[in-house]
Amino acid sequence: MLPGNDNHDWGIVFADQMRDGQQQTESTQEQPWLVAGGHEFRSRLILGIEQYTSPELVGAVLTAGACDVFITTFDQSNTGTSLLLSDLDNSMDLSSFAWIGTTSFARSCEEAVDTARKLRQSFGIDVIKLDVRDPDNMPDGAQTIRAAEQLLAEGFAVLPFVTADVDVTGQLAELGCSAIRVMASPVASARGIVDETAVRRVIEALDVPVVVEGGLGTPEHVTFAMRLGAAAVLVNTAVAIAPDSARMADAMRHAVAAGRLAVQAAAA
Amino acid sequence: MLPGNDNHDWGIVFADQMRDGQQQTESTQEQPWLVAGGHEFRSRLILGIEQYTSPELVGAVLTAGACDVFITTFDQSNTGTSLLLSDLDNSMDLSSFAWIGTTSFARSCEEAVDTARKLRQSFGIDVIKLDVRDPDNMPDGAQTIRAAEQLLAEGFAVLPFVTADVDVTGQLAELGCSAIRVMASPVASARGIVDETAVRRVIEALDVPVVVEGGLGTPEHVTFAMRLGAAAVLVNTAVAIAPDSARMADAMRHAVAAGRLAVQAAAA
Repeated sequence: MLPGNDNHDWGIVFADQMRDGQQQTESTQEQPWLVAGGHEFRSRLILGIEQYTSPELVGAVLTAGACDVFITTFDQSNTGTSLLLSDLDNSMDLSSFAWIGTTSFARSCEEAVDTARKLRQSFGIDVIKLDVRDPDNMPDGAQTIRAAEQLLAEGFAVLPFVTADVDVTGQLAELGCSAIRVMASPVASARGIVDETAVRRVIEALDVPVVVEGGLGTPEHVTFAMRLGAAAVLVNTAVAIAPDSARMADAMRHAVAAGRLAVQAAAA
Repeated sequence: MLPGNDNHDWGIVFADQMRDGQQQTESTQEQPWLVAGGHEFRSRLILGIEQYTSPELVGAVLTAGACDVFITTFDQSNTGTSLLLSDLDNSMDLSSFAWIGTTSFARSCEEAVDTARKLRQSFGIDVIKLDVRDPDNMPDGAQTIRAAEQLLAEGFAVLPFVTADVDVTGQLAELGCSAIRVMASPVASARGIVDETAVRRVIEALDVPVVVEGGLGTPEHVTFAMRLGAAAVLVNTAVAIAPDSARMADAMRHAVAAGRLAVQAAAA
């Protein structure tokens, strides 16, 4: 028999428990996992949005994912801005998002730096999701390090994408990158984390937050990344190709919460 | 409508808080996945609770898991009821749960039937989580079928636990079992679904709901089971042994939601 056990007391206990539970699970209640470029990043689910053609769908997806990051870019191969900038800026309230730029079309250090400068000039963007890919669409570590050096010197907050290599990620962290994005498996491969040991070693070795990204094709991949100690995950194709992308974003949001809570439950 | 949200103060508080943020995803907003013995089963996470020694912890775990099933039993090897019945019935409001009985201590058809009858006699329980285990703690299919026949003849709703065998599960469904619980891997092994093909075949072959259970050790195991088409999962040891069991129950709740939403997102 619990002391003071009538329905009313249980109500209070129950309400308090829920409040605690939601504090831990709702990303907005937690401390930010990253502060960079004047933005607080709380949501641990980042969604790539360049594969959508409908501004409304982008809004529905980011809402269902409870995301707080909006990623934009210039596509250097086109003459103007991407669909996202031209359409979304007028059709969504973007002010509630941390607006960051990506260089994911860049094939060289120079192209990445040029894209970042344009994004700052046009939109005041100071946080760069730095991608320099080789012809096989794999991260180019050497070019990425060169671009990171340049962008950091110009005052950008930099979030570079590289393979799960302790040396490369360590160099990028030492240069002053805000967080390191490590590849789980090739982009769009849906293979999940192919080298668990490598990802775990990078997470353990670095003092900065690690974002796991690339090839996260199922909610289980996302949960596993979080359980390995990722600060956040970036998902793109798995949500974009789902027949109901918003619902898949919601699934991924729950997958992040499941992994995060499991880590906390095990560490208690 | 949340289970128990009829006339209990705490139920109403719970409902209001949940309505705020979790409208789309809470299983309680869905149709019940099972109606049996006069109970509607909505939560797709069932938690075994016989490994706990604290009534308060059982309450916290079931709350964090948003469970609506309460499983109780007589332990035939003891003289009286289990801790759960003697302590919890006085210390928790159990009326909001679907109260079902388990025979998980039974080693024979006769022992299982005897336990079920005692549970009905003492507590009016009409839904039986039927387990008959062999000396290796594996489900005994033949004894389980015999016990199911007997219990169904006596008017019980029966939820039998067997391996993922199309013939055995088919027989049990044909006898009139309400749902079939299939083993993912040996109880407490934390190995997840070892034979994906077998589980998938059973789910596809049966017209009744399939609960996946046994060896679900991580949130990923739970999500995968839901993605295979399980109507619900039953988790026990993974939550019970976690340093913070309530938080692990919360993780499992999110894992169920992730899997369920992913199925819906893919089927849209």
